[in-house]
Amino acid sequence: MIVVLAGGVGAARFLQGLIQVVPQERLTVIVNTGDDRDFYGLHVSPDIDIVMYTLSGIVDETHGWGIRNDTYNTMQQLTSYGNEDWFMLGDRDLATHIHRTKLLRQGKTLSEITDELRKQFGLTLRILPMSDQNVRTHIQTPAGLLHFQEYMVKRRCVDPVLDVVFAGASEASTAPGVLDAIKEAEAILIAPSNPIVSIGSILAIPGIHDALHEASGMVVAISPIVGGAPIKGPADKLMLGLKMDVSPVGVARYYRDFLDVMVIDQQDKHLIGAIEDLGIPAVATNTIMRDSAAKKALAQKVLEVAGLG
Amino acid sequence: MIVVLAGGVGAARFLQGLIQVVPQERLTVIVNTGDDRDFYGLHVSPDIDIVMYTLSGIVDETHGWGIRNDTYNTMQQLTSYGNEDWFMLGDRDLATHIHRTKLLRQGKTLSEITDELRKQFGLTLRILPMSDQNVRTHIQTPAGLLHFQEYMVKRRCVDPVLDVVFAGASEASTAPGVLDAIKEAEAILIAPSNPIVSIGSILAIPGIHDALHEASGMVVAISPIVGGAPIKGPADKLMLGLKMDVSPVGVARYYRDFLDVMVIDQQDKHLIGAIEDLGIPAVATNTIMRDSAAKKALAQKVLEVAGLG
Repeated sequence: MIVVLAGGVGAARFLQGLIQVVPQERLTVIVNTGDDRDFYGLHVSPDIDIVMYTLSGIVDETHGWGIRNDTYNTMQQLTSYGNEDWFMLGDRDLATHIHRTKLLRQGKTLSEITDELRKQFGLTLRILPMSDQNVRTHIQTPAGLLHFQEYMVKRRCVDPVLDVVFAGASEASTAPGVLDAIKEAEAILIAPSNPIVSIGSILAIPGIHDALHEASGMVVAISPIVGGAPIKGPADKLMLGLKMDVSPVGVARYYRDFLDVMVIDQQDKHLIGAIEDLGIPAVATNTIMRDSAAKKALAQKVLEVAGLG
Repeated sequence: MIVVLAGGVGAARFLQGLIQVVPQERLTVIVNTGDDRDFYGLHVSPDIDIVMYTLSGIVDETHGWGIRNDTYNTMQQLTSYGNEDWFMLGDRDLATHIHRTKLLRQGKTLSEITDELRKQFGLTLRILPMSDQNVRTHIQTPAGLLHFQEYMVKRRCVDPVLDVVFAGASEASTAPGVLDAIKEAEAILIAPSNPIVSIGSILAIPGIHDALHEASGMVVAISPIVGGAPIKGPADKLMLGLKMDVSPVGVARYYRDFLDVMVIDQQDKHLIGAIEDLGIPAVATNTIMRDSAAKKALAQKVLEVAGLG
């Protein structure tokens, strides 16, 4: 079993490569739910949906989220009733949130619902939310504490980041299967996701950090920072706010307690020495997943680095 | 103030005529909510929506319900998750149910939500649900007790009707304003709606029957049965099941405790004598609302009969 710690778009694209070289049945993906939020009373789990939509081939590739060729009629009507309109939810996408919310209200857990949905999408890998409890990533800014989606989508990352808070994390427990999966994994791959708000939120759930530290499988991370900037999203702003180096070195330092190997882009190979100074071996390869072949090649390289090549 | 007791399509069309001859501000509509049902965890109030959509001009005129040119993408996706698909809910229409459900969960009453929505639709008449509590119209059939929507929409009225039960009605109370509106009305008009499941459900809420009986305003009903059959819907099957005459006479008998005048279609004028034998004066006119002019003419006639012409 191979475990992948995952956020949204970057992780989903990495997983598209991984399922080309490893049978889905061998994969367990532990997904960030710190970005989850209620919209219109419906529970939206953006990263879980991005992973499911991407792997089942229905994702809107242009955005990296949502369903291809979706319409926005429900949202337009909701807006006419005075509802907020800054988080785009397509009509087909809304079905996922309506269905999930219905099942949550019936008493099912997010894990159970996610497992039902991934089956309905024809996926045979295991997708586990990091926790079945509410953990909410908040960004401390001069304007106050903002839910991550408000910081990123509503206010377009313009607020200076003072701190990142994973509200509810310390009282949350990992979803069923999460700690066992890490413990039993042949390798644990940290996807090229935002280290703070996608992976940091997972690390904030009690037990995960220790499980990674004690894991017998190798822990291999792929840097989401290439050439001094993230491929997508506000990782640089968040890392700067937390006084981290916006570089693969900063990422490696953030993961150093449990990281066995850091995979970085070839254009950052001059940083190998700095990462190895942290006591972490580093490998440079092409990490930019432009197409299916590049995704597959990256997955192969990462598996090789993890001793499973 | 004029009060109208209303179901769905027939009532909405009658109201389209009425607002041509009376300022909306003078109207209070008391709407059946016995047909309400949860779909996908969302609260659907079909008759309230039909009235709002019709009077605001967005209704799908072909069906008489739903929003014109709506799409069905959310529902199609919901169906792919194994949800039932027999009650058509368009994407724009779903926004109403999502919004209503969100506000109900926030603790608002159906009355408060309906009042907010009708304002958002630019309507200035008062729309009151019959009750803020759940009252559910069930049809007793050989196949068991069916929710009215299951009887009508899912099973297309094929089951023999043994009885009609308004579950929860005896414990429910009228929504705020309902009894006062009836008490203070210059006239109470009973729309040409299904006497059993649209009007009977309203009559089943404690206090309504007595308020109508004691009302100082005239109570005038328009027969939904013309030429021995309803214009739309299963009123005939329900009336037969309850051993009623499927005729304006049967309707008049059902309302006889509080009815002052029965308005019937001109093709049924031979029944005037039979209705008057019940002690209820009857007036024949054209009640078939083919177009806007016919709706207006019917409204004018009914007001005249009610002494407000």
